[in-house]
Amino acid sequence: MIGYFGPAGTFTHQALRTVSGGDATPYATVAGVLDAVRSGEVEEGIVPIENSVEGGVTATLDNLAVGGDPLLIVREVLLPVSFVLAVRPGYELADVQRIITHPHAHAQTRDWVRKHAPQATVTEGGSTAAAAAEVADPASRFDGAICAQVAAELYDLDCAARDIADNPDAVTRFVMVRRPGSLPAPTGADKTTLVAYMYADHSGALLDILEQFAMRGVNLTRIESRPTKKAFGEYCFSIDAEGHIGEPRLRGTLKGLHRICRDVTFLGSYPRADQVRPKIARGFTAEEYEAAEVWMDGLLGRTASERR
Amino acid sequence: MIGYFGPAGTFTHQALRTVSGGDATPYATVAGVLDAVRSGEVEEGIVPIENSVEGGVTATLDNLAVGGDPLLIVREVLLPVSFVLAVRPGYELADVQRIITHPHAHAQTRDWVRKHAPQATVTEGGSTAAAAAEVADPASRFDGAICAQVAAELYDLDCAARDIADNPDAVTRFVMVRRPGSLPAPTGADKTTLVAYMYADHSGALLDILEQFAMRGVNLTRIESRPTKKAFGEYCFSIDAEGHIGEPRLRGTLKGLHRICRDVTFLGSYPRADQVRPKIARGFTAEEYEAAEVWMDGLLGRTASERR
Amino acid sequence: MIGYFGPAGTFTHQALRTVSGGDATPYATVAGVLDAVRSGEVEEGIVPIENSVEGGVTATLDNLAVGGDPLLIVREVLLPVSFVLAVRPGYELADVQRIITHPHAHAQTRDWVRKHAPQATVTEGGSTAAAAAEVADPASRFDGAICAQVAAELYDLDCAARDIADNPDAVTRFVMVRRPGSLPAPTGADKTTLVAYMYADHSGALLDILEQFAMRGVNLTRIESRPTKKAFGEYCFSIDAEGHIGEPRLRGTLKGLHRICRDVTFLGSYPRADQVRPKIARGFTAEEYEAAEVWMDGLLGRTASERR
Amino acid sequence: MIGYFGPAGTFTHQALRTVSGGDATPYATVAGVLDAVRSGEVEEGIVPIENSVEGGVTATLDNLAVGGDPLLIVREVLLPVSFVLAVRPGYELADVQRIITHPHAHAQTRDWVRKHAPQATVTEGGSTAAAAAEVADPASRFDGAICAQVAAELYDLDCAARDIADNPDAVTRFVMVRRPGSLPAPTGADKTTLVAYMYADHSGALLDILEQFAMRGVNLTRIESRPTKKAFGEYCFSIDAEGHIGEPRLRGTLKGLHRICRDVTFLGSYPRADQVRPKIARGFTAEEYEAAEVWMDGLLGRTASERR
Repeated sequence: MIGYFGPAGTFTHQALRTVSGGDATPYATVAGVLDAVRSGEVEEGIVPIENSVEGGVTATLDNLAVGGDPLLIVREVLLPVSFVLAVRPGYELADVQRIITHPHAHAQTRDWVRKHAPQATVTEGGSTAAAAAEVADPASRFDGAICAQVAAELYDLDCAARDIADNPDAVTRFVMVRRPGSLPAPTGADKTTLVAYMYADHSGALLDILEQFAMRGVNLTRIESRPTKKAFGEYCFSIDAEGHIGEPRLRGTLKGLHRICRDVTFLGSYPRADQVRPKIARGFTAEEYEAAEVWMDGLLGRTASERR
Repeated sequence: MIGYFGPAGTFTHQALRTVSGGDATPYATVAGVLDAVRSGEVEEGIVPIENSVEGGVTATLDNLAVGGDPLLIVREVLLPVSFVLAVRPGYELADVQRIITHPHAHAQTRDWVRKHAPQATVTEGGSTAAAAAEVADPASRFDGAICAQVAAELYDLDCAARDIADNPDAVTRFVMVRRPGSLPAPTGADKTTLVAYMYADHSGALLDILEQFAMRGVNLTRIESRPTKKAFGEYCFSIDAEGHIGEPRLRGTLKGLHRICRDVTFLGSYPRADQVRPKIARGFTAEEYEAAEVWMDGLLGRTASERR
Repeated sequence: MIGYFGPAGTFTHQALRTVSGGDATPYATVAGVLDAVRSGEVEEGIVPIENSVEGGVTATLDNLAVGGDPLLIVREVLLPVSFVLAVRPGYELADVQRIITHPHAHAQTRDWVRKHAPQATVTEGGSTAAAAAEVADPASRFDGAICAQVAAELYDLDCAARDIADNPDAVTRFVMVRRPGSLPAPTGADKTTLVAYMYADHSGALLDILEQFAMRGVNLTRIESRPTKKAFGEYCFSIDAEGHIGEPRLRGTLKGLHRICRDVTFLGSYPRADQVRPKIARGFTAEEYEAAEVWMDGLLGRTASERR
Repeated sequence: MIGYFGPAGTFTHQALRTVSGGDATPYATVAGVLDAVRSGEVEEGIVPIENSVEGGVTATLDNLAVGGDPLLIVREVLLPVSFVLAVRPGYELADVQRIITHPHAHAQTRDWVRKHAPQATVTEGGSTAAAAAEVADPASRFDGAICAQVAAELYDLDCAARDIADNPDAVTRFVMVRRPGSLPAPTGADKTTLVAYMYADHSGALLDILEQFAMRGVNLTRIESRPTKKAFGEYCFSIDAEGHIGEPRLRGTLKGLHRICRDVTFLGSYPRADQVRPKIARGFTAEEYEAAEVWMDGLLGRTASERR
């Protein structure tokens, strides 16, 4: 059983459908999904983690970083963002006065609303699917919901407008998580996600963190600073790097971070959705790492099995 | 006249009162405040920019970065965060079923609600003051608002609970902005805010940006990554650095960033609220910069007025 | 009048002839040449500075760095290294028992001697030309000199063997120096030579020095560490970088070094003998430097003539 | 049996006496000593490697780097430099016309000679002891030798002047080498010597090499650039670093260099003569390295004995 950030009709639901046709349970919050995985209520969970327009999904990033028992990302799913303005049957665009939607959806359709529905006010609520449900209630004071097409269908709403995202190229990224166990096998086109908690000092600490990657030839595909919720200026960094923990350059980077950071949370190594295979620069291949170990074995007069 | 992120009763309103007793106009959104400053409707505006628990205030960061004509930060204000659970007179904590509040306030009181009002659901709305106004309406389906004390007073609500922030040390930072003009004079304890837009490549670009600061001895007090709303992995970095553009090490850093970044937006140099004076390391004082220029004048056989 | 590291018949003499047919005066030592330029006895001087096999010419590097009034390099000359084994007429290779030559020449012909004249011992003396003069003296206990072809001719010696350098591709680099005055104009294919004296700490100091170049896109073509003759571990670095002090990236690098180093000696900007034009990376052209200044002018509300 | 850079009476001989009273064999050249160790003719050899005034001893550095089978440094010896001007009995300072000495000794007494024996010319020869032997020969055209006190005694010469070094604090550093075998045990105050051969590109390559040390908290106590005798601009770097290959931070550095360099020659880990114990910064102790490995074991579900 898979848990998802629901209710039925959310973009997460839609993303899940692209990779699984099996049984799925909606949870009202990202925390709900992740806690259900932690408790064993569901085996896997899928939640949004990053939006190409709005940035990181704070609730997901923060919950994975400090929300409870550790979880592992085992897969990522990309979904193009496409919004509709859903209304009760009979309503037209010009009639819409009070729109409800999720803050992220609001942020991604702000220009469209200003231009095509300037008469309407927008209220931010819990999810785009809940917004559709709200509008479907004839007693609601809201008469429009910005949501996914699937939510409009689910609640028998009409679409007063389609494809209303300000940026038509927006994509949302979702991750599937499990309790820690065996890792997905390396595919050669993998990503590793982690959170690094720096010690007090700022500029220096982030530079040191980035150098651990750079000096092992590991490129980053995402970096987000997040406050640690303790004091101004105390950050952690949520990072996606190319490569798999099965590669020595990634293992070296993680061990290096473990030494120089206050803490490091490993959130998984998993196949990239875009299947891009990184070009590993001279000096950073598994073969070169092994050659260096063999050379060191010779210097120390030890065998490979005596390595530490 | 000063514009603030309203309505009356918001934390921004409260922050404004700590520094100014003059006339003030509320605006419904951060964008509203900033546009009013841009248009000249108000001379100054105050908006939240950073919260020690929730991180950067996205609406402010993004609007200052790309929201229209450039604005300059001329002052920062720090305010300890303190929430109450406001209810209609006669209600008690155990009666509260439907709470409304701003998403950031929700995030900062989540644990308290889970523990002390587990029966209640929380809906996220536009502002904490609007939440109080909503609850003050006897017809509202909401019976509790998480808001500032001042908002409870303003709308004649009772406080079913006080000091309900999960983290009692939380602080919010606000900035006052003006249209570009003369900069605040250096005080020796200043901050400079800017946004750096990197070119495509990730890890390398951020390292390069950080090195521009590090190699001139400039420490950072805040760094936030923000997507540029164009494509995954294209970021800009919103940065606060110690020092004032009147110092040559800051001017050098800004000019260096201008050369290596796709774009740089300068958002102001202004006094630090905490009045901490940075210790400037050997090699980075104004005197050492001037000495290097004088030496170069000698090598090139030019006078100071011929410098470029 | 040009002074050169003599006597007549040295490689320096030969190098001088490739660029000037005018009057020239030999000096017995590198210090003699450089002091003659300093005193005005000659207008220019030519000395060896670097050998592709033996490395930097210590006497030249140290004298330019700390040997007296500053001098400027205005030109470089490259000369392929080619040695002969010169003997008194009538002698043959098998007769040679006692060879004399300059230590650098010895170092570059060691393998040849071991193989083709194993019976001979080699004594190191002041110059290859002096070695030829010594052998030309019938009373000398030396019967072979490793020297330049021109020296053998000058002293009427026979060549028992030619082209005896162990490395046939060896090249020596010479520099012409003058008293400080106007610099050679930039050609687009230039080199800048300097000496940077680091503060006490080692690894960090050299890293900092190299970063001043790297972060302005300036490549190095030579770097030599030299003790400062004071204490173990106190070094200066003799450096050739691509580019001309007329370029802002070079001026910025030099000024940065001036701030972070104990001292910097500028030894000149002059055309490269190989005429290679460097590819200047994005962010480091004179145009980009000027654009950053213009941007800064705008931020500070100043005109270009008010720049500092 | 120990071989030393002779003949009897050299500074190397004197250095050897400070640490060993046993049988010793002189060799005429540094290469002779090192080859005798390689061939097994002697068990150990002692040669000069660095002088605080003149810098690295090229013959030693180059021979250890590329002179044949690898050797290991097992000990270092420091000796204050102290020269005398030795003359045939009856001669006085004012009589001395033709001095002979080793180039390094010449370089370190140049000012003294200029001031106190301006009438004399100096010829550079093979060793200071050989210079003394030469002067002891009544038929010699030389009448003064700059050498060690012990050499003057050995050849029954008078000292026309003592303590004539220009820099009275000069120190020479010698190393004892053996054929590879078991390494000296770590003492907590150790040094590691190596030669790193960079790939073509210059500035970048040296920066990369230095970062391998810096990012593991390993300080350098000596760095010398040496041409690789192939082409201009192709260097290797002879480096002394604090620490012992038995420490994981040193092993990590060496393995990192092995990956990014064209080649690395390990020349030994041995006790520091000055017995200074380095302060190991946070993140770089053996305990922190082991903790990172244990953490990685947990992530990968492996035991310590399965580590690679």
